Amino acid sequence: MGIVLKGITAALGEALVLKRVDIRIEGNTIETVSESPLEAKEGYETIQGEGKLAIPGLVNAHTHLPMVLFRGAADDLPLSQWLSEYIWPREARLTEDEIYWGALLGLAEMIRSGTTLFSDMYFHLDAIGRAVAESGMRALLSYGIIAPRLDEKGKQELERTEWTITHLHDTVDGRIRIAVAPHSVYTCGKDVWEMAVKLARKYEVPIHTHIAETRDEVADCYVRDGVSPVELLERWGALSGPVIAAHCVHVSPADIEILKARGVSVVHCPKSNAKLGSGTAPVARMSEAGVNVALGTDGAASNNSLNMIAELRFASLAAKAVNENPMLIPAKDALRMASAVGATALGSGDTGKIEEGCRADIVLLDIEMLETLPMYDPISALVYSAGREAVSDVMVDGRFLMRERTLTTIDEDRVKYEVKRIANRYRNQTHPHLGGREIPRADAGVEGGTDGTYHGEEKRVDPDLRVE
Amino acid sequence: MGIVLKGITAALGEALVLKRVDIRIEGNTIETVSESPLEAKEGYETIQGEGKLAIPGLVNAHTHLPMVLFRGAADDLPLSQWLSEYIWPREARLTEDEIYWGALLGLAEMIRSGTTLFSDMYFHLDAIGRAVAESGMRALLSYGIIAPRLDEKGKQELERTEWTITHLHDTVDGRIRIAVAPHSVYTCGKDVWEMAVKLARKYEVPIHTHIAETRDEVADCYVRDGVSPVELLERWGALSGPVIAAHCVHVSPADIEILKARGVSVVHCPKSNAKLGSGTAPVARMSEAGVNVALGTDGAASNNSLNMIAELRFASLAAKAVNENPMLIPAKDALRMASAVGATALGSGDTGKIEEGCRADIVLLDIEMLETLPMYDPISALVYSAGREAVSDVMVDGRFLMRERTLTTIDEDRVKYEVKRIANRYRNQTHPHLGGREIPRADAGVEGGTDGTYHGEEKRVDPDLRVE
Repeated sequence: MGIVLKGITAALGEALVLKRVDIRIEGNTIETVSESPLEAKEGYETIQGEGKLAIPGLVNAHTHLPMVLFRGAADDLPLSQWLSEYIWPREARLTEDEIYWGALLGLAEMIRSGTTLFSDMYFHLDAIGRAVAESGMRALLSYGIIAPRLDEKGKQELERTEWTITHLHDTVDGRIRIAVAPHSVYTCGKDVWEMAVKLARKYEVPIHTHIAETRDEVADCYVRDGVSPVELLERWGALSGPVIAAHCVHVSPADIEILKARGVSVVHCPKSNAKLGSGTAPVARMSEAGVNVALGTDGAASNNSLNMIAELRFASLAAKAVNENPMLIPAKDALRMASAVGATALGSGDTGKIEEGCRADIVLLDIEMLETLPMYDPISALVYSAGREAVSDVMVDGRFLMRERTLTTIDEDRVKYEVKRIANRYRNQTHPHLGGREIPRADAGVEGGTDGTYHGEEKRVDPDLRVE
Repeated sequence: MGIVLKGITAALGEALVLKRVDIRIEGNTIETVSESPLEAKEGYETIQGEGKLAIPGLVNAHTHLPMVLFRGAADDLPLSQWLSEYIWPREARLTEDEIYWGALLGLAEMIRSGTTLFSDMYFHLDAIGRAVAESGMRALLSYGIIAPRLDEKGKQELERTEWTITHLHDTVDGRIRIAVAPHSVYTCGKDVWEMAVKLARKYEVPIHTHIAETRDEVADCYVRDGVSPVELLERWGALSGPVIAAHCVHVSPADIEILKARGVSVVHCPKSNAKLGSGTAPVARMSEAGVNVALGTDGAASNNSLNMIAELRFASLAAKAVNENPMLIPAKDALRMASAVGATALGSGDTGKIEEGCRADIVLLDIEMLETLPMYDPISALVYSAGREAVSDVMVDGRFLMRERTLTTIDEDRVKYEVKRIANRYRNQTHPHLGGREIPRADAGVEGGTDGTYHGEEKRVDPDLRVE
């Protein structure tokens, strides 16, 4: 059983070389890429590539999936007010059931915009893992450890982390893998970090954390420890194995040298950094220094979407704007950051490129939409002109998760229904745009018409377990 | 004859107050907006507003419509190389027929992304005017004057401008209006500017120009004239009537005071400025100073789209990022810049808002798409989460230009066919992404299959008439 893509323009290998080829997929693997016609074997599905572009599935290297439930709940606010008044109170109320449906909403959105692999940090990983398994997506999941000290609670956080490794790592044909995620240097103490690193080494899994997202974080670190967050983690021995470091907005030249020397993969999250006013990461400087810089959306509560096509475009345009240099992050580099570089960062180097022997994580786009014509360069069209609506088909491990714009693994209507139900629980705060009045019930017909079908147990989550 | 929108969430007035209302449209006018149910009169079309958001039609206050033909032809290049090697040689070859089809492509893209009014600067206004008239869009068109001196050619430029006023101004029920467009202080001399201003005053039409787009422009102006471009135009008396000033990226506090005092409308084009590496306009500072700041895409050769939803989002995020302030350009302000502020800038104050007595230029969006759920605030959803695919219906003067995602005035397939035909003429240069090799014919099936249906006269345009 397999699939043959016939006469399709494809961005091949890590170099994203454009060629018109036939691609034969055998099981979960890209078996043959050929400039000569390939025969479909018996029982193979054949897809005509006319008017399509095949790219490697996009990689969202940093997100907090269920936070999509709080998309648009609070915008245009200072970070501290956003967190303390809007996000934390809501996160504290999240149930496992809600996290499951929130994860499915985020997964559906990611598939519809061409993402096939992502790295997540949150809690209730049993629920998130179940959603990922059902969706057919590939993921590196992590439980966000928040523990200033290695006390009872700190130990419990590490036990929960170990549980995720022993129960979820390398499951569903290797599609789900686990990382160890001490949240940051300001939420986890030295002894917690050391135990977390030990755990990562024991199971040979990567570390996923936040580094230098805001000026305050860096300033506080200097005051407390006399060094930068990067230097502190280097001192603690945390950077000697694979590390996925989200943000790195405020890093010094010395920090960049450490990131390069240690092979740390930085995840640039330009839209979230922009919307929260955190600043602009020196992404061009990091790339030039040889640091692996992948791309991520961060959570949809601060983005406010999980759309990697928008993210790679924003990364390219923002770098050009801030540096007043139109040559920075050219189209191919933007796409590479969002594919092969991200896949390597997440330890999935057998994905993120269309190449013989790689896993068949492939996305097809319509490049003959009105919005991408005329077509001089398909990669330019994708990076600078296409919307996510151009994505027509998404495949992970040779299996279609979306076929001709219809999701095959997620019941979209059910997800929308459940998400509206859940949102009603969080609609208890008015929104600043509305001058203190209640939000008009644009969707009242659906919401008002139900009288509550939710009967699940509401497990109140320890408010301290929140992760941003 | 008219239309009644029933039970729709609408952003009302210039303040964009969200209310659930019925809206009755009589002819080209918003007759009644009511929180109580309105009856449809005999023969009225009734539209159920469930799950929809009604916003004023978006206003693209600065573009060069036919340049959409060069979208993606050259990216990631220094401005001078982009212009001299890619854009100018192509513009010099443009025929009237090509400009007509390019304009229709741009119009279709704008309608599909919710724009109802735009301000354009280009040449062959007969062709552009024809396309606008057929499309049903509202436009302020202008012929871009390029003339360093008031010599024979300079006079011809002014005559062409006057022709556009006497033949096109206030035509098709007032949907097409004309501005006088001396291109800039570096392409038009003092005497040309003075004659252009005279012409604008004589016919009581606005001036449309470019000001302070790049550092070089400003530096050259200081060297040549000892003042900034804004100060120079003030000295020349060019700012005493209505002026639409694109860009204003590099303006001083003194410039901003002049812009405010003279009531100049600035058109912020953040994506084009970003992509060309021109810098970031001090849009927050201008707004705080009380300057009208509208939004525009600029031409699609440098954007690379004509999507005002993307533009208003980028304006908000870029301002927050550069100033490290998450409260700048909040969602409602972004939408207002792209609607009422833009309409006022273009002299169409009877559009750009949903209000009794205003022209019925209204856009409906689906706000129950997966990508905009959950829905806490429809304006946040539009500004930070929605893609142009959320736009379902677009109305100008009470007439649908798009109804349930189908264009009613433009034959989309024909436009795509003609644009592919035209693009073949300009496919003579290889693209840097492809390492000097030819672009793969992703669309070869369509293009290769035709043997040239183009038989129009190719009127070679004077290369000096190009406008960027």
